[in-house]
Amino acid sequence: MGAIDGKDFINRLNQLNNEIWYDGEKIEGLLSEQPAFKGLIQSKAALYDLQHDPKIKDEMTFISPVSGELIGLSYLQPKTKEDLIRRRKMSEHWARYSGGIMGRSPDYLNTVLMSFTSSVSFLKNKDKCFPNNLQSFYELARENDLSFTHTFISPQVNRSHIYFENTDEPIAAKVIDKNEEGIIIKGARLLATQGGLTDEVLVFSVGKFLFNEDEAFAFSIPSNTKGIKFICRDTFIGGQSSFNHPLSSRFEEMDSIVVFDNVLVPWDRVFYYNNAEVAEAFPIQSSFHPFTKHQVLTRQIVKTEFVLGIAQLLIETINISEYQHVQEKMSEIIIGLETMKSLLEKSENNAKLDKWGYMRPEIFPLQVAGNIFPKIYPRFTEIIQLIGASGMITLPTENAFQSIIRNDLDLYLQGATKTAEERVKIFRLAWDLTMSSFGTRQTQYERYFFGDPIRLSSDLYKKYPKNEFVKVVSNFLNLKKEE
Amino acid sequence: MGAIDGKDFINRLNQLNNEIWYDGEKIEGLLSEQPAFKGLIQSKAALYDLQHDPKIKDEMTFISPVSGELIGLSYLQPKTKEDLIRRRKMSEHWARYSGGIMGRSPDYLNTVLMSFTSSVSFLKNKDKCFPNNLQSFYELARENDLSFTHTFISPQVNRSHIYFENTDEPIAAKVIDKNEEGIIIKGARLLATQGGLTDEVLVFSVGKFLFNEDEAFAFSIPSNTKGIKFICRDTFIGGQSSFNHPLSSRFEEMDSIVVFDNVLVPWDRVFYYNNAEVAEAFPIQSSFHPFTKHQVLTRQIVKTEFVLGIAQLLIETINISEYQHVQEKMSEIIIGLETMKSLLEKSENNAKLDKWGYMRPEIFPLQVAGNIFPKIYPRFTEIIQLIGASGMITLPTENAFQSIIRNDLDLYLQGATKTAEERVKIFRLAWDLTMSSFGTRQTQYERYFFGDPIRLSSDLYKKYPKNEFVKVVSNFLNLKKEE
Amino acid sequence: MGAIDGKDFINRLNQLNNEIWYDGEKIEGLLSEQPAFKGLIQSKAALYDLQHDPKIKDEMTFISPVSGELIGLSYLQPKTKEDLIRRRKMSEHWARYSGGIMGRSPDYLNTVLMSFTSSVSFLKNKDKCFPNNLQSFYELARENDLSFTHTFISPQVNRSHIYFENTDEPIAAKVIDKNEEGIIIKGARLLATQGGLTDEVLVFSVGKFLFNEDEAFAFSIPSNTKGIKFICRDTFIGGQSSFNHPLSSRFEEMDSIVVFDNVLVPWDRVFYYNNAEVAEAFPIQSSFHPFTKHQVLTRQIVKTEFVLGIAQLLIETINISEYQHVQEKMSEIIIGLETMKSLLEKSENNAKLDKWGYMRPEIFPLQVAGNIFPKIYPRFTEIIQLIGASGMITLPTENAFQSIIRNDLDLYLQGATKTAEERVKIFRLAWDLTMSSFGTRQTQYERYFFGDPIRLSSDLYKKYPKNEFVKVVSNFLNLKKEE
Amino acid sequence: MGAIDGKDFINRLNQLNNEIWYDGEKIEGLLSEQPAFKGLIQSKAALYDLQHDPKIKDEMTFISPVSGELIGLSYLQPKTKEDLIRRRKMSEHWARYSGGIMGRSPDYLNTVLMSFTSSVSFLKNKDKCFPNNLQSFYELARENDLSFTHTFISPQVNRSHIYFENTDEPIAAKVIDKNEEGIIIKGARLLATQGGLTDEVLVFSVGKFLFNEDEAFAFSIPSNTKGIKFICRDTFIGGQSSFNHPLSSRFEEMDSIVVFDNVLVPWDRVFYYNNAEVAEAFPIQSSFHPFTKHQVLTRQIVKTEFVLGIAQLLIETINISEYQHVQEKMSEIIIGLETMKSLLEKSENNAKLDKWGYMRPEIFPLQVAGNIFPKIYPRFTEIIQLIGASGMITLPTENAFQSIIRNDLDLYLQGATKTAEERVKIFRLAWDLTMSSFGTRQTQYERYFFGDPIRLSSDLYKKYPKNEFVKVVSNFLNLKKEE
Repeated sequence: MGAIDGKDFINRLNQLNNEIWYDGEKIEGLLSEQPAFKGLIQSKAALYDLQHDPKIKDEMTFISPVSGELIGLSYLQPKTKEDLIRRRKMSEHWARYSGGIMGRSPDYLNTVLMSFTSSVSFLKNKDKCFPNNLQSFYELARENDLSFTHTFISPQVNRSHIYFENTDEPIAAKVIDKNEEGIIIKGARLLATQGGLTDEVLVFSVGKFLFNEDEAFAFSIPSNTKGIKFICRDTFIGGQSSFNHPLSSRFEEMDSIVVFDNVLVPWDRVFYYNNAEVAEAFPIQSSFHPFTKHQVLTRQIVKTEFVLGIAQLLIETINISEYQHVQEKMSEIIIGLETMKSLLEKSENNAKLDKWGYMRPEIFPLQVAGNIFPKIYPRFTEIIQLIGASGMITLPTENAFQSIIRNDLDLYLQGATKTAEERVKIFRLAWDLTMSSFGTRQTQYERYFFGDPIRLSSDLYKKYPKNEFVKVVSNFLNLKKEE
Repeated sequence: MGAIDGKDFINRLNQLNNEIWYDGEKIEGLLSEQPAFKGLIQSKAALYDLQHDPKIKDEMTFISPVSGELIGLSYLQPKTKEDLIRRRKMSEHWARYSGGIMGRSPDYLNTVLMSFTSSVSFLKNKDKCFPNNLQSFYELARENDLSFTHTFISPQVNRSHIYFENTDEPIAAKVIDKNEEGIIIKGARLLATQGGLTDEVLVFSVGKFLFNEDEAFAFSIPSNTKGIKFICRDTFIGGQSSFNHPLSSRFEEMDSIVVFDNVLVPWDRVFYYNNAEVAEAFPIQSSFHPFTKHQVLTRQIVKTEFVLGIAQLLIETINISEYQHVQEKMSEIIIGLETMKSLLEKSENNAKLDKWGYMRPEIFPLQVAGNIFPKIYPRFTEIIQLIGASGMITLPTENAFQSIIRNDLDLYLQGATKTAEERVKIFRLAWDLTMSSFGTRQTQYERYFFGDPIRLSSDLYKKYPKNEFVKVVSNFLNLKKEE
Repeated sequence: MGAIDGKDFINRLNQLNNEIWYDGEKIEGLLSEQPAFKGLIQSKAALYDLQHDPKIKDEMTFISPVSGELIGLSYLQPKTKEDLIRRRKMSEHWARYSGGIMGRSPDYLNTVLMSFTSSVSFLKNKDKCFPNNLQSFYELARENDLSFTHTFISPQVNRSHIYFENTDEPIAAKVIDKNEEGIIIKGARLLATQGGLTDEVLVFSVGKFLFNEDEAFAFSIPSNTKGIKFICRDTFIGGQSSFNHPLSSRFEEMDSIVVFDNVLVPWDRVFYYNNAEVAEAFPIQSSFHPFTKHQVLTRQIVKTEFVLGIAQLLIETINISEYQHVQEKMSEIIIGLETMKSLLEKSENNAKLDKWGYMRPEIFPLQVAGNIFPKIYPRFTEIIQLIGASGMITLPTENAFQSIIRNDLDLYLQGATKTAEERVKIFRLAWDLTMSSFGTRQTQYERYFFGDPIRLSSDLYKKYPKNEFVKVVSNFLNLKKEE
Repeated sequence: MGAIDGKDFINRLNQLNNEIWYDGEKIEGLLSEQPAFKGLIQSKAALYDLQHDPKIKDEMTFISPVSGELIGLSYLQPKTKEDLIRRRKMSEHWARYSGGIMGRSPDYLNTVLMSFTSSVSFLKNKDKCFPNNLQSFYELARENDLSFTHTFISPQVNRSHIYFENTDEPIAAKVIDKNEEGIIIKGARLLATQGGLTDEVLVFSVGKFLFNEDEAFAFSIPSNTKGIKFICRDTFIGGQSSFNHPLSSRFEEMDSIVVFDNVLVPWDRVFYYNNAEVAEAFPIQSSFHPFTKHQVLTRQIVKTEFVLGIAQLLIETINISEYQHVQEKMSEIIIGLETMKSLLEKSENNAKLDKWGYMRPEIFPLQVAGNIFPKIYPRFTEIIQLIGASGMITLPTENAFQSIIRNDLDLYLQGATKTAEERVKIFRLAWDLTMSSFGTRQTQYERYFFGDPIRLSSDLYKKYPKNEFVKVVSNFLNLKKEE
């Protein structure tokens, strides 16, 4: 069927009847009409419509090598630097729709699947691995423009170093059995963003777990597979008014716990299972990190531009650009933006073909960006709060502007360069990004996007090639050569 | 009537019929039943009830010098160090009820009024000043346990250094006329916390405005005075469930814009007017800063203890106390707590009688605390977010725990030392304090409690006695003595 | 003999003939005349003279309970809060002489010895412990005003967690044998400040080593004991001119490696040996931490005052007090100073008698100060550098001011409020404190005064009573009581 | 004569007989033999020799368009991106010789002169401007490989905003007269690095002074011009031993005050004078900033690599790579390095021809780097101190290793992977870079390389194109278009 549009997306989703629990109730009826999900589903539909927007269609799709149809560019396996740049432009288009707010626009997980598939040869001839299944499934997804959720982490019962789960009931999702039809999964995974709101659930075990073999697997199954439940957290939608809640009314992505209640994963959907070595090595040696970090950094740059625009609008509204401390705070955002752009550019310039023929962006600049953004994004939100100051608090609602009290608002809430209504819109956007429940979840999300910042920092140190610099200094000091 | 209890407070408030606008509508009916205000009014009532709690009544009240009745200790003018410590204990009792969350418990503004009154002699024989009015009004308030809101700042239209308002319509509240009965005020003031939810509106012009004479005044009038409107911001109550929203359901204090629409302030309620010199000097030379900063620091210490307790509960729940970076973060909170406590203790130890016979705590430690807390409190909230990590996000609701999905929650959300339900309660409290719209408003509130942090820091430098240390170094270097 | 004066100190030291190695040569001749040590020895002599200064003699000495002579107050075992405050005043007098620069003024190690002795009962009836030796030695030291160096740490060969020394030759100092006369020590200890420049070497094993029993000992022996060598680092004296090098020419304390080459420690000087349990527990349970941290904090406050005076003199010299960022930096120093003073005051106010009858200051405020100062002192030096800016660099010498070039200097280096010569003196002091080799060693010294900052922070978290705050929050949430 | 070698440099310098004052005495005899200057002069000679090193000669020189001789590549006016990259490689070669330590390797000021000359057309037809003089002088310098010092700032008498010099005697250098032969300069300039140690003194008034016309000039004159005096600061050479002082013994560049005592600048050396408008605009509109910042960033990257190598060597020496906080600190350096490299790469990729036909690197990434490095370099030095800890202090000298004490040193100072001697060499290098007087001057130098960090940050904000991002947000909110 090729690249879908918004209507396709909504229709397919509504037909799934996924088992979703929200605020103690099982969702019944059309998913796309539920207040808690409607905004997000419409926003995603708008993204899919962009694939058919005549102005940018060429930048959002490519021709399927099998069907000849136009298919989503987020599925493109890059073989040249030009391909990489095409991918970046596609991600920019999607990111700009939400100011980079939507962390799980479809390109994110499509890239994840594409990146694993691009390294599928790694799985060849390895125990309990099925590279052909991965390859076929990727093609199925690409040709049908499937949408995904994913879960990375196990329940946070006990995070001590020395904790091993030894309950009777599995808590972390495990392979508890297998039979002719497939493997049986029982247990839970945390934090499936948009869980239940996509066609498929993609499950890869990423990270360095001291895991048991039975937690080491990878597969994908339809969201409506028997036994899968999505248990939602409380919503962070502040309300349906886009005046009052310009972001949460449209981009609240919802997170859920995914419960696997004796779920059968058919063999043709199993990529590997019960192989801890592969589960650890595949995410590291495949192109997973270079390609997904490239997509993520692209989005984060768009988001930083959005932040910079908001901050500058606040400044103009109340006319405070002359203050040195305001200038210094703004220059922090600018420094962040230019730094991220430079890192992205370097990673593209120095991209190299991997041994399987795909063009990987250089990993170190991306890894550096992955260390920087979780620290500077929270600081950006703080800067916006410091610029907005007390103006972030006393913000009336859309209804107030439609009542007789409006005259007072027009007079007393006017800005130096904006009407009261515009000023309130601008400040509410700043507030929704940085101070609403939606906004603070965004901050937490960016902080932990690639996991524990402490581990990210240790990883960078361990992997970075330091020895050439040690040699320079050893020569400078005429130290004995190390053998 | 003496110290009131909760019922007194509610009844009196309900009778006022203040003009309050919320979400485009004028509030009608019993104020204490309005969803947006109910929680706060009940919490304040509980505070007033503490004045009659047999266990601590003696620490909450003292005997009126005029009526012989028990009256609220927050009105006590301290003449000895023991008085100061009594005041501190009273504030601790009230602060503990809300974990220090309620920024405008009654003692705050009662202390403000008490502090100005204790320096009332400053106003004697000054132009357009009425010290007797202030003295009488203080006694009226004290004997009747009146409650207050206050507004400090003018609308934030244009914050440029070189901006002077020159519109036809006043924006910042001004004296536009006077007659036999009193002065006439027109214009607005921002950020009256609990505006409309108190007996009185106290208006002092605090700060170093380059103001016009007509913005330089001080008075107090009943909240239901003709022409006063309170325009509320959007509520930050997340919902009525105290499981889901343990803080906002009870302590959301609401902020409002106060509009003075040709309000007549009767002469006997005018403390001074159209005297810029007095308006600048009185807040600085009176005991306003020492007494209110003493109250505020007391509350902030209680709040820091509450923060420390929450953080430690999170740690125990998921068993992460062994991590060095967790220990380091916790030690930051402990350092903050001990520092604040020490500063408070030093200010009390070195309290001195001022020239009007009142026992002022030493100002410098309080000023230092006023510089520190706006920086460390936001950091505390960040620490809680960093400790809670992804656990701060996937939090189901009270209803979920009362549905059949509960079994899943009990299994998958259990903590190392807590049941799933307890864990969710603890994390929701952490979330409501640091990530809900209510919590972020708290953060912003603490950040700006005493105004612009940059000004606070400059003030400290300017006022601190540095010369003795310059002399020590000059002697060390045998520099020529300066004359 | 009682409290000594400067001449006594120098004479006794010169007679010892300690084995000191400096720059590849063994020191011969009068120690007090050696360029590398002269300045420090004279400064210490000046401190001892203060014990006989008629103006403060009463604050520097007390009457010996055994001899009736005046003896040094740094040896006083405090039994009341007044005693504590007397001790603090004594330390202030000595600290002020050097602006708090001399880290090892005699009161530091006298306090260490006094604190261990005040808990001597802890050693009673414990294996290989000799409490009477400690008690007698303390009295000997007190009555003769002995001076001390000390070493805390073992050579830094390999700091990995899992490293255990297993060389044939001992590296860390160990008990390698014992006989009728005493125990035999072989190996080295690092970083004996003023090593070789004192009467005695005090050796306590402080800290939580995973040590072998044979490294667990405590004793004191004369610096000239056979087999002890002090190997000095390079000097940080910039030159003999106190104009050019106002600090290093007078207060460079020198650090040395102490080599124990089969040193016999006579039994009457052994306090304990080969008892790891005692060696770990005694420093923690004795009053070592409260008393020494009290002395250290006192000195650091004097130093902070000195820093504040220097910074303010710089500002006045080039007239930059109007800049907001300068004000902010200065307020950082002020905040540090007031905080440290408050913590000291709280520790004294809440001092309590320990079970052996001595008045211990409260430990937590002192521990907090011990966490803060290593971070703020380096920042203070940075602030001084930022205030002095390029003016810290182009600083001519004393000789230049005595040559014909002086006219140019007088004209071009004048300050706004100071002559060129005064300005250069002030900036050279700022430079010597923060940028000379002497100054940076000071910074490193303060950073590590009580050891690894990361451990200090973990210790504070572990020992601080958090449970009361956990209970407050548990009650607030109505959690089940923990048994 | 073309590109010179080391011998040419030394000979020419020795013949100048510049008037240099050091420690109150006028330098007499061969400059290259003076202890205070010898190391630097030899190091610069070694740089010039690299121009003739057969292995890299092609990368260090190009063919003169006028003489056909090989001339120094630092004089090349870049017209293509390849030219830019050639320039960068040349700078890398020179920077690597000193680990990026030498801030004023010849390419720095050669680039300054080249950059102004490349924009010489700006001066055409402007009052009191002589573009032909600049062009001719550039060619003279290029063909003869002249070396330069420069002075940017006026004496720091009074840095208040509102200070205007009004003494009788000029303090800041001024044009006090002119005659047929040229202009007469009297007064001083500060901080000429290598002042007196170069062929020429280049004087441009850079920055936004509120200057008088008579301080607005640009010229270059030989260092031995009558009336020029160089007054040196105290030396930061720790000693002649390169074991003890691996950096200061070789790279101490000396700074001096330049006194102009009625110096005649001949007309053919005057580029402009008494034109404040040009003096302000020329440095901003010329390619001065892009080209010099490109050179500076190149050197700073090499320096950062050197820092990284030293830090890693320290870690390996005492085996502490396993500590998470060590890994985190190292990742800070790595993040800094990759960021700087990316910014440089972006500036080259996006280079554009300016209106005068020269290829300017993009300014914003360079400006960002100029904001970052002054903050991260001091942090790098702190990290090295934190990694080295107490090991940075107890460092014996070269002589100690040549004495009988060596056996003790070999045993007690050995590292986990290095001999004692190697370990001391490594730690002394770390110390000389970060803690010696030489090292701290380096830190201060990098901090202020392009002037006041606060101004740099404001500049970035003001010049950065923010409007496009404001538009994005305005569209997102459907705000009215601004006209």
